[in-house]
Amino acid sequence: MNALETMILDKGLVLEGGILKVDMFLNHQIEPKLIMAMGRDFHEHFKDKPITKVLTVEASGIPIAMATALEFDVPVVFAKKGRHKNVGNDVYTSQVYSYTKGESYEINILKKYLTADDRVLFVDDFLANGAAAKGIIDIIGQAGASLLGIGIAIEKGFQDGGALLRGMGVDLYSLAIIDRMEPGKITLREHD
Amino acid sequence: MNALETMILDKGLVLEGGILKVDMFLNHQIEPKLIMAMGRDFHEHFKDKPITKVLTVEASGIPIAMATALEFDVPVVFAKKGRHKNVGNDVYTSQVYSYTKGESYEINILKKYLTADDRVLFVDDFLANGAAAKGIIDIIGQAGASLLGIGIAIEKGFQDGGALLRGMGVDLYSLAIIDRMEPGKITLREHD
Repeated sequence: MNALETMILDKGLVLEGGILKVDMFLNHQIEPKLIMAMGRDFHEHFKDKPITKVLTVEASGIPIAMATALEFDVPVVFAKKGRHKNVGNDVYTSQVYSYTKGESYEINILKKYLTADDRVLFVDDFLANGAAAKGIIDIIGQAGASLLGIGIAIEKGFQDGGALLRGMGVDLYSLAIIDRMEPGKITLREHD
Repeated sequence: MNALETMILDKGLVLEGGILKVDMFLNHQIEPKLIMAMGRDFHEHFKDKPITKVLTVEASGIPIAMATALEFDVPVVFAKKGRHKNVGNDVYTSQVYSYTKGESYEINILKKYLTADDRVLFVDDFLANGAAAKGIIDIIGQAGASLLGIGIAIEKGFQDGGALLRGMGVDLYSLAIIDRMEPGKITLREHD
Protein backbone atom coordinates (compact mmCIF):
# COMPACT_ATOMS: atom_id res chain seq x y z
CA MET A 1 0.00 0.00 0.00
CA ASN A 2 1.48 3.33 -1.02
CA ALA A 3 1.44 6.56 1.01
CA LEU A 4 -1.63 7.95 -0.74
CA GLU A 5 -3.69 4.80 -0.23
CA THR A 6 -2.83 4.79 3.45
CA MET A 7 -3.86 8.45 3.73
CA ILE A 8 -7.15 7.89 1.89
CA LEU A 9 -8.14 5.07 4.23
CA ASP A 10 -6.95 7.00 7.28
CA LYS A 11 -8.36 10.48 6.52
CA GLY A 12 -10.65 10.36 3.46
CA LEU A 13 -14.34 11.01 4.04
CA VAL A 14 -17.26 9.87 1.94
CA LEU A 15 -20.28 12.16 2.11
CA GLU A 16 -23.85 11.31 1.21
CA GLY A 17 -24.29 11.45 -2.55
CA GLY A 18 -21.00 9.72 -3.29
CA ILE A 19 -18.69 12.69 -2.75
CA LEU A 20 -15.16 11.87 -1.63
CA LYS A 21 -13.55 14.55 0.55
CA VAL A 22 -9.77 14.55 0.49
CA ASP A 23 -9.33 18.28 0.99
CA MET A 24 -7.51 17.70 4.27
CA PHE A 25 -4.41 16.46 2.43
CA LEU A 26 -4.80 16.74 -1.37
CA ASN A 27 -6.79 19.65 -2.77
CA HIS A 28 -7.24 22.46 -0.25
CA GLN A 29 -4.94 21.62 2.61
CA ILE A 30 -1.88 19.83 1.21
CA GLU A 31 0.57 17.54 2.99
CA PRO A 32 3.88 18.25 1.23
CA LYS A 33 5.63 15.01 2.28
CA LEU A 34 2.72 12.96 0.93
CA ILE A 35 2.82 14.86 -2.37
CA MET A 36 6.57 14.32 -2.68
CA ALA A 37 6.07 10.58 -2.06
CA MET A 38 3.46 10.55 -4.83
CA GLY A 39 5.98 12.17 -7.19
CA ARG A 40 8.48 9.42 -6.39
CA ASP A 41 5.80 6.74 -6.98
CA PHE A 42 4.95 8.20 -10.40
CA HIS A 43 8.64 8.38 -11.26
CA GLU A 44 9.12 4.75 -10.27
CA HIS A 45 6.36 3.69 -12.67
CA PHE A 46 7.26 5.93 -15.63
CA LYS A 47 11.03 6.25 -15.17
CA ASP A 48 11.98 4.27 -18.29
CA LYS A 49 10.12 6.71 -20.54
CA PRO A 50 11.92 9.72 -22.03
CA ILE A 51 9.56 12.30 -20.54
CA THR A 52 10.38 15.92 -21.44
CA LYS A 53 7.48 17.68 -19.73
CA VAL A 54 4.87 17.07 -17.04
CA LEU A 55 1.49 18.57 -17.87
CA THR A 56 -1.37 19.21 -15.47
CA VAL A 57 -4.44 21.43 -15.06
CA GLU A 58 -4.67 24.14 -12.41
CA ALA A 59 -5.04 24.15 -9.48
CA SER A 60 -5.00 20.86 -7.53
CA GLY A 61 -2.82 19.04 -10.05
CA ILE A 62 0.03 21.53 -9.69
CA PRO A 63 1.74 20.27 -6.51
CA ILE A 64 1.59 16.65 -7.71
CA ALA A 65 2.97 17.65 -11.11
CA MET A 66 5.79 19.60 -9.49
CA ALA A 67 6.79 16.69 -7.23
CA THR A 68 6.77 14.37 -10.25
CA ALA A 69 8.67 16.74 -12.55
CA LEU A 70 11.33 17.21 -9.90
CA GLU A 71 12.08 13.47 -10.06
CA PHE A 72 12.32 13.54 -13.87
CA ASP A 73 14.21 16.87 -13.83
CA VAL A 74 11.88 18.36 -16.45
CA PRO A 75 9.55 21.40 -16.40
CA VAL A 76 5.87 21.40 -15.46
CA VAL A 77 3.36 23.18 -17.65
CA PHE A 78 -0.05 23.73 -16.12
CA ALA A 79 -3.07 24.40 -18.32
CA LYS A 80 -4.99 27.46 -17.24
CA LYS A 81 -8.74 27.36 -16.87
CA GLY A 82 -11.07 29.96 -18.32
CA ARG A 83 -11.00 32.02 -21.43
CA HIS A 84 -7.51 33.19 -22.29
CA LYS A 85 -7.15 36.97 -22.56
CA ASN A 86 -5.85 36.78 -26.10
CA VAL A 87 -7.04 33.49 -27.57
CA GLY A 88 -5.51 33.44 -31.00
CA ASN A 89 -2.52 31.98 -32.65
CA ASP A 90 -0.52 31.77 -29.45
CA VAL A 91 -2.54 29.27 -27.38
CA TYR A 92 -3.83 25.72 -27.69
CA THR A 93 -7.30 25.47 -26.24
CA SER A 94 -9.83 22.73 -25.52
CA GLN A 95 -13.24 22.44 -23.89
CA VAL A 96 -13.64 20.28 -20.78
CA TYR A 97 -17.08 19.23 -19.60
CA SER A 98 -17.35 19.10 -15.82
CA TYR A 99 -19.93 16.54 -14.73
CA THR A 100 -19.69 17.87 -11.18
CA LYS A 101 -20.61 21.39 -12.20
CA GLY A 102 -22.76 20.50 -15.21
CA GLU A 103 -20.95 22.95 -17.48
CA SER A 104 -17.94 23.25 -19.74
CA TYR A 105 -14.80 25.21 -19.12
CA GLU A 106 -11.88 26.01 -21.35
CA ILE A 107 -8.27 24.97 -20.76
CA ASN A 108 -5.36 26.78 -22.38
CA ILE A 109 -1.65 26.21 -22.88
CA LEU A 110 0.62 28.73 -24.58
CA LYS A 111 1.97 27.14 -27.76
CA LYS A 112 5.55 28.01 -26.95
CA TYR A 113 5.45 25.72 -23.90
CA LEU A 114 4.30 22.58 -25.75
CA THR A 115 5.97 21.61 -29.00
CA ALA A 116 6.08 18.64 -31.38
CA ASP A 117 9.31 17.52 -29.68
CA ASP A 118 7.65 17.12 -26.28
CA ARG A 119 7.01 13.70 -24.75
CA VAL A 120 4.38 14.29 -22.13
CA LEU A 121 3.40 12.79 -18.81
CA PHE A 122 -0.02 14.15 -17.78
CA VAL A 123 -0.60 14.16 -14.03
CA ASP A 124 -3.81 15.03 -12.18
CA ASP A 125 -5.40 14.61 -8.78
CA PHE A 126 -8.60 12.85 -9.87
CA LEU A 127 -9.87 10.69 -12.72
CA ALA A 128 -13.60 10.10 -12.97
CA ASN A 129 -15.07 10.41 -16.47
CA GLY A 130 -11.77 11.43 -18.00
CA ALA A 131 -13.01 14.82 -19.20
CA ALA A 132 -9.85 16.75 -18.25
CA ALA A 133 -7.63 14.01 -19.69
CA LYS A 134 -9.51 14.15 -22.99
CA GLY A 135 -9.00 17.92 -23.11
CA ILE A 136 -5.27 17.53 -22.47
CA ILE A 137 -5.02 14.76 -25.11
CA ASP A 138 -6.75 17.11 -27.54
CA ILE A 139 -4.18 19.84 -26.81
CA ILE A 140 -1.26 17.40 -27.07
CA GLY A 141 -2.62 16.42 -30.49
CA GLN A 142 -2.87 20.06 -31.57
CA ALA A 143 0.78 20.54 -30.61
CA GLY A 144 1.88 17.36 -32.39
CA ALA A 145 3.48 16.27 -29.10
CA SER A 146 3.41 12.68 -27.77
CA LEU A 147 1.56 11.42 -24.71
CA LEU A 148 3.75 8.84 -22.95
CA GLY A 149 1.60 8.30 -19.90
CA ILE A 150 -1.00 9.54 -17.46
CA GLY A 151 -0.46 9.53 -13.71
CA ILE A 152 -3.53 9.94 -11.52
CA ALA A 153 -3.64 10.30 -7.76
CA ILE A 154 -7.17 8.97 -7.19
CA GLU A 155 -9.10 7.09 -9.85
CA LYS A 156 -12.78 6.50 -9.29
CA GLY A 157 -12.76 2.95 -10.60
CA PHE A 158 -16.55 2.83 -10.77
CA GLN A 159 -16.64 5.60 -13.38
CA ASP A 160 -15.60 5.13 -16.97
CA GLY A 161 -12.56 7.39 -17.44
CA GLY A 162 -10.05 4.66 -16.59
CA ALA A 163 -11.54 2.09 -18.99
CA LEU A 164 -11.78 4.73 -21.71
CA LEU A 165 -8.11 5.75 -21.44
CA ARG A 166 -6.77 2.20 -21.07
CA GLY A 167 -8.92 1.24 -24.09
CA MET A 168 -7.10 3.95 -26.07
CA GLY A 169 -3.81 2.26 -25.19
CA VAL A 170 -2.72 4.97 -22.75
CA ASP A 171 -0.24 3.92 -20.05
CA LEU A 172 -2.47 5.01 -17.19
CA TYR A 173 -1.13 4.60 -13.67
CA SER A 174 -3.33 5.51 -10.73
CA LEU A 175 -1.83 5.56 -7.25
CA ALA A 176 -5.20 4.66 -5.71
CA ILE A 177 -8.24 3.21 -7.42
CA ILE A 178 -11.48 3.36 -5.49
CA ASP A 179 -13.78 0.52 -6.45
CA ARG A 180 -16.58 1.32 -4.03
CA MET A 181 -17.29 3.98 -1.48
CA GLU A 182 -20.07 4.76 0.94
CA PRO A 183 -20.14 6.87 4.11
CA GLY A 184 -17.68 5.23 6.49
CA LYS A 185 -16.26 2.74 3.99
CA ILE A 186 -13.81 3.09 1.09
CA THR A 187 -12.81 0.00 -0.86
CA LEU A 188 -9.53 0.31 -2.79
CA ARG A 189 -8.64 -1.95 -5.72
CA GLU A 190 -5.79 -4.37 -5.00
CA HIS A 191 -2.60 -3.83 -6.97
CA ASP A 192 -1.66 -6.42 -9.61
CA MET B 1 22.16 36.87 -6.01
CA ASN B 2 19.67 34.06 -5.40
CA ALA B 3 18.39 31.53 -7.95
CA LEU B 4 15.22 33.48 -8.71
CA GLU B 5 17.05 36.77 -9.31
CA THR B 6 19.43 35.04 -11.70
CA MET B 7 16.50 33.50 -13.58
CA ILE B 8 14.62 36.82 -13.81
CA LEU B 9 17.63 38.58 -15.33
CA ASP B 10 18.34 35.61 -17.61
CA LYS B 11 14.82 34.78 -18.84
CA GLY B 12 12.34 37.44 -17.70
CA LEU B 13 10.77 39.60 -20.40
CA VAL B 14 9.32 43.08 -20.04
CA LEU B 15 6.59 43.88 -22.53
CA GLU B 16 5.36 47.30 -23.56
CA GLY B 17 2.98 48.65 -20.92
CA GLY B 18 5.11 47.46 -18.01
CA ILE B 19 4.10 43.82 -18.04
CA LEU B 20 6.67 41.36 -16.69
CA LYS B 21 6.53 37.92 -18.29
CA VAL B 22 7.94 35.13 -16.16
CA ASP B 23 5.61 32.42 -17.42
CA MET B 24 8.56 30.45 -18.78
CA PHE B 25 9.64 29.45 -15.25
CA LEU B 26 7.19 30.69 -12.60
CA ASN B 27 3.50 30.82 -13.48
CA HIS B 28 2.65 28.71 -16.54
CA GLN B 29 5.74 26.66 -17.21
CA ILE B 30 7.45 25.90 -13.90
CA GLU B 31 11.07 24.95 -13.25
CA PRO B 32 10.82 22.59 -10.25
CA LYS B 33 14.45 22.94 -9.13
CA LEU B 34 14.12 26.73 -9.08
CA ILE B 35 10.93 26.48 -7.03
CA MET B 36 12.58 24.14 -4.55
CA ALA B 37 15.50 26.59 -4.19
CA MET B 38 12.98 29.36 -3.48
CA GLY B 39 11.43 27.22 -0.74
CA ARG B 40 14.87 26.81 0.85
CA ASP B 41 15.49 30.58 0.61
CA PHE B 42 12.19 31.33 2.37
CA HIS B 43 12.98 28.76 5.05
CA GLU B 44 16.40 30.30 5.61
CA HIS B 45 14.78 33.70 6.25
CA PHE B 46 11.84 32.55 8.40
CA LYS B 47 13.30 29.42 10.04
CA ASP B 48 13.38 30.86 13.56
CA LYS B 49 9.62 31.42 13.56
CA PRO B 50 7.25 28.72 14.83
CA ILE B 51 5.28 28.45 11.58
CA THR B 52 2.42 25.92 11.66
CA LYS B 53 0.96 26.50 8.21
CA VAL B 54 1.91 28.00 4.85
CA LEU B 55 -0.95 29.83 3.15
CA THR B 56 -1.18 30.84 -0.48
CA VAL B 57 -3.77 31.63 -3.15
CA GLU B 58 -4.37 29.38 -6.16
CA ALA B 59 -2.88 28.80 -8.65
CA SER B 60 0.65 30.16 -9.16
CA GLY B 61 1.41 30.41 -5.46
CA ILE B 62 0.86 26.68 -4.90
CA PRO B 63 4.21 25.25 -6.02
CA ILE B 64 6.16 27.91 -4.10
CA ALA B 65 4.06 27.29 -1.00
CA MET B 66 4.61 23.55 -1.27
CA ALA B 67 8.38 23.90 -1.59
CA THR B 68 8.41 26.20 1.44
CA ALA B 69 6.09 24.06 3.57
CA LEU B 70 8.25 21.01 2.84
CA GLU B 71 11.20 22.78 4.50
CA PHE B 72 9.12 23.68 7.57
CA ASP B 73 7.42 20.26 7.60
CA VAL B 74 3.96 21.86 7.89
CA PRO B 75 0.86 21.73 5.66
CA VAL B 76 -0.02 24.17 2.89
CA VAL B 77 -3.51 25.60 2.66
CA PHE B 78 -4.37 27.33 -0.57
CA ALA B 79 -7.24 29.80 -0.75
CA LYS B 80 -9.63 29.05 -3.57
CA LYS B 81 -10.78 31.78 -5.91
CA GLY B 82 -14.39 32.37 -6.86
CA ARG B 83 -17.62 31.97 -5.03
CA HIS B 84 -17.64 28.93 -2.77
CA LYS B 85 -20.43 26.45 -3.46
CA ASN B 86 -21.76 26.69 0.03
CA VAL B 87 -20.65 29.97 1.51
CA GLY B 88 -21.91 29.88 5.02
CA ASN B 89 -20.62 29.05 8.40
CA ASP B 90 -17.91 26.74 7.11
CA VAL B 91 -15.68 29.15 5.14
CA TYR B 92 -13.73 32.34 5.71
CA THR B 93 -14.05 34.63 2.73
CA SER B 94 -12.60 37.93 1.59
CA GLN B 95 -12.77 40.15 -1.50
CA VAL B 96 -9.61 40.82 -3.48
CA TYR B 97 -9.50 43.65 -6.00
CA SER B 98 -7.39 42.82 -9.04
CA TYR B 99 -5.87 45.96 -10.53
CA THR B 100 -4.77 43.95 -13.56
CA LYS B 101 -8.28 42.78 -14.33
CA GLY B 102 -10.12 45.79 -12.92
CA GLU B 103 -12.51 43.65 -10.91
CA SER B 104 -12.84 41.91 -7.57
CA TYR B 105 -12.75 38.21 -6.89
CA GLU B 106 -13.47 36.22 -3.78
CA ILE B 107 -11.00 34.01 -1.91
CA ASN B 108 -12.12 31.26 0.44
CA ILE B 109 -10.56 29.00 3.04
CA LEU B 110 -12.49 26.31 4.87
CA LYS B 111 -12.59 27.21 8.55
CA LYS B 112 -11.41 23.80 9.66
CA TYR B 113 -8.06 24.37 7.93
CA LEU B 114 -7.22 27.66 9.66
CA THR B 115 -7.66 27.98 13.40
CA ALA B 116 -6.74 30.40 16.18
CA ASP B 117 -3.75 28.18 16.98
CA ASP B 118 -2.20 28.65 13.54
CA ARG B 119 0.94 30.73 13.02
CA VAL B 120 0.94 31.53 9.35
CA LEU B 121 3.53 32.20 6.68
CA PHE B 122 1.78 33.59 3.59
CA VAL B 123 3.65 32.91 0.33
CA ASP B 124 2.81 34.20 -3.15
CA ASP B 125 4.41 34.61 -6.55
CA PHE B 126 3.87 38.38 -6.95
CA LEU B 127 3.40 41.45 -4.80
CA ALA B 128 2.28 44.65 -6.51
CA ASN B 129 -0.46 46.59 -4.69
CA GLY B 130 -0.80 43.97 -1.97
CA ALA B 131 -4.44 43.19 -2.73
CA ALA B 132 -4.14 39.42 -2.29
CA ALA B 133 -2.06 39.86 0.87
CA LYS B 134 -4.73 42.15 2.34
CA GLY B 135 -7.38 39.51 1.60
CA ILE B 136 -5.32 36.81 3.30
CA ILE B 137 -4.63 39.08 6.29
CA ASP B 138 -8.39 39.66 6.53
CA ILE B 139 -9.02 35.89 6.57
CA ILE B 140 -6.24 35.29 9.13
CA GLY B 141 -7.93 37.89 11.32
CA GLN B 142 -11.33 36.21 10.95
CA ALA B 143 -9.75 32.93 12.08
CA GLY B 144 -7.97 34.56 15.03
CA ALA B 145 -4.74 33.08 13.68
CA SER B 146 -1.36 34.90 13.66
CA LEU B 147 0.56 36.13 10.64
CA LEU B 148 4.27 35.56 11.27
CA GLY B 149 5.55 36.58 7.86
CA ILE B 150 5.00 37.01 4.14
CA GLY B 151 7.31 35.50 1.54
CA ILE B 152 7.05 36.88 -1.99
CA ALA B 153 8.83 35.63 -5.07
CA ILE B 154 8.78 38.87 -7.08
CA GLU B 155 7.94 42.22 -5.52
CA LYS B 156 7.30 45.13 -7.82
CA GLY B 157 9.20 47.67 -5.75
CA PHE B 158 7.74 50.60 -7.68
CA GLN B 159 4.20 49.73 -6.54
CA ASP B 160 2.96 50.31 -3.03
CA GLY B 161 2.19 46.84 -1.65
CA GLY B 162 5.63 46.38 -0.11
CA ALA B 163 5.62 49.74 1.69
CA LEU B 164 2.07 49.13 2.88
CA LEU B 165 2.88 45.73 4.41
CA ARG B 166 6.22 46.78 5.91
CA GLY B 167 4.43 49.83 7.36
CA MET B 168 2.01 47.45 9.09
CA GLY B 169 5.01 45.78 10.74
CA VAL B 170 4.77 42.62 8.67
CA ASP B 171 7.99 40.62 8.27
CA LEU B 172 7.92 40.75 4.47
CA TYR B 173 10.71 38.99 2.61
CA SER B 174 10.84 39.18 -1.17
CA LEU B 175 13.30 37.01 -3.05
CA ALA B 176 13.54 39.58 -5.84
CA ILE B 177 12.50 43.23 -5.79
CA ILE B 178 12.21 44.95 -9.13
CA ASP B 179 12.91 48.65 -8.82
CA ARG B 180 12.59 49.54 -12.48
CA MET B 181 11.77 47.69 -15.65
CA GLU B 182 11.47 48.56 -19.30
CA PRO B 183 11.66 46.40 -22.42
CA GLY B 184 15.14 44.88 -22.45
CA LYS B 185 16.12 46.04 -18.95
CA ILE B 186 15.18 44.87 -15.46
CA THR B 187 16.77 46.58 -12.44
CA LEU B 188 16.73 44.55 -9.23
CA ARG B 189 17.10 46.12 -5.80
CA GLU B 190 20.38 45.28 -4.05
CA HIS B 191 20.08 43.20 -0.91
CA ASP B 192 20.89 44.86 2.39
